[in-house]
Amino acid sequence: MKALRFDGKLQFVRDADLPRREGEALVQVICAGICNTDLEIVNGYAGFRGTLGHEFVGRVVESPEGSLVGRRVVGEINAGCGGCLRCVDSDPRHCVHRTVLGIKGRDGAFAEFLSLPPRNLLEVPDSVSDEAAVFVEPLAAAFNIIEQVSIGSASDVVVVGDGKLAQLIVLVLARTGCSITVIGKHEDKLELARAYGAHRVHLGDSDLVPEWHGCFDIAIEASGSPSGLASALKLVKPRGTVVLKSTHHSLTPLDTSQIVVNELNIVGSRCGRFAPALDLVASGEVDLIPLISRRFPIEDGVFAFEQAKLPSAMKVILHTA
Amino acid sequence: MKALRFDGKLQFVRDADLPRREGEALVQVICAGICNTDLEIVNGYAGFRGTLGHEFVGRVVESPEGSLVGRRVVGEINAGCGGCLRCVDSDPRHCVHRTVLGIKGRDGAFAEFLSLPPRNLLEVPDSVSDEAAVFVEPLAAAFNIIEQVSIGSASDVVVVGDGKLAQLIVLVLARTGCSITVIGKHEDKLELARAYGAHRVHLGDSDLVPEWHGCFDIAIEASGSPSGLASALKLVKPRGTVVLKSTHHSLTPLDTSQIVVNELNIVGSRCGRFAPALDLVASGEVDLIPLISRRFPIEDGVFAFEQAKLPSAMKVILHTA
Repeated sequence: MKALRFDGKLQFVRDADLPRREGEALVQVICAGICNTDLEIVNGYAGFRGTLGHEFVGRVVESPEGSLVGRRVVGEINAGCGGCLRCVDSDPRHCVHRTVLGIKGRDGAFAEFLSLPPRNLLEVPDSVSDEAAVFVEPLAAAFNIIEQVSIGSASDVVVVGDGKLAQLIVLVLARTGCSITVIGKHEDKLELARAYGAHRVHLGDSDLVPEWHGCFDIAIEASGSPSGLASALKLVKPRGTVVLKSTHHSLTPLDTSQIVVNELNIVGSRCGRFAPALDLVASGEVDLIPLISRRFPIEDGVFAFEQAKLPSAMKVILHTA
Repeated sequence: MKALRFDGKLQFVRDADLPRREGEALVQVICAGICNTDLEIVNGYAGFRGTLGHEFVGRVVESPEGSLVGRRVVGEINAGCGGCLRCVDSDPRHCVHRTVLGIKGRDGAFAEFLSLPPRNLLEVPDSVSDEAAVFVEPLAAAFNIIEQVSIGSASDVVVVGDGKLAQLIVLVLARTGCSITVIGKHEDKLELARAYGAHRVHLGDSDLVPEWHGCFDIAIEASGSPSGLASALKLVKPRGTVVLKSTHHSLTPLDTSQIVVNELNIVGSRCGRFAPALDLVASGEVDLIPLISRRFPIEDGVFAFEQAKLPSAMKVILHTA
């Protein structure tokens, strides 16, 4: 089958093996989105080798649970061992033996077919378009923030970054009634953040708004840049919370004394549960299509990655069908 | 008066001005302890210039609250503006206009006299020795951890570091009934940690005990070394908590992806309330004197700092009376 694989070098291949795994469903991928994590893996992050991609929508072609066959689905990307305490507690996201679609020990979604356990799959309602469904995974990651940190109408929240994940975070925050400020580097993206619910935006570096330093209850670092954390640490109040979403290949030099002196709380945040994200997409309340900047057939995947790296880019979608 | 001052260079002087401040008490210092923060200030941390020292016991010689005169006291080191929201909420520790004894905008305790607001002073019971009283400030910083993070008998806690602050943290943790592991670099200090309540100790780097990685609910970084945080991040479970106590002048290179992927919680922790610390010292339940490695008259302060820097050192006390 066709697949976009990384083996030290990103390349499109036509002869990849079908990813069949015992007891799992085989899903024919319709389309999939390129995430910042995919770009970081190509930079060396996570040491992954294999087919990339973890944001997808597809149709089940084989499954031990026969009722799934023919269904259009999205899929939770963490596959736990099923036997450890974490898995038994319904949290395979932190199973130490887990595989993760296109990130860790499991071929991903930039291919004609992928394999996932049936319990990872959620059916997508007919009202949701294929491309909108691709956003369920990153939107779930955004929803995870409000499961980890208490955010309400009295909270003053700043989002550092204006990229695709930052935009989804704004959409989720807007549901809490909190005050939302976004600091970014692209005028058009900040305009979209306003449309998605940001009350205030700033174009440029956070150092240009020193009057905002120490002003926010919560700062969410979603810039995808190692410098974003330093900005977030400056923007929160003493005893404030910094939510960290970006993963990088490189080490970040950090003034940890600032964390001690201001008694800050830093919360790492990764994947979320799919259900609330799928509900929001299915509600029709949000239009995700403005987040897509380019679409390519999977054959042009290597070029698509180059496009996804451009500072102006938002979501780049690969069509496999 | 005699004082140990830092003005880009640490020096002992005989002609320092008396530190009189309007509306404050004048305290004649009896003795004071050298803290890792003092050593870091001499390395350039916090940009402080003036008389160092913030762990002390002394006797009040002048005070607008006459009843304090003649009393032997310890003192909370943060002096808030008194008017801001933080101060009104009884939290001058985070007042943005605060001064901090021997650390920020206020001459410290390595001198014959110091000045603090009367509300910062707590009388020391007669049963407590002068040298034991010096530990109330760092012990309060240790107590602050259990005010910030929920630690109970089911908690599995590792302390990274075996220095003087780490030892005080072990003493406090022992009051919670939690399981305590200490990782340090000095056999004699680890022995003391055992005497103070540690159930398990490890001599050497945390990388030498890979079987402990990902095993602890809570890791407390009190090593005073920039590498301590990296160890703490490895030792905690997914969704675990790392408490950060050490302040450094230098930047720490950090793999922030680990925080995101394991959804860790990092909590900065600084000063604490004095009351519980003074209660514990006054109870006579703990013997703090084994923590003292050297005593010097303030005239030998520069040499005392050299001794305090030695890896083998614990608390070094300066006597001013």
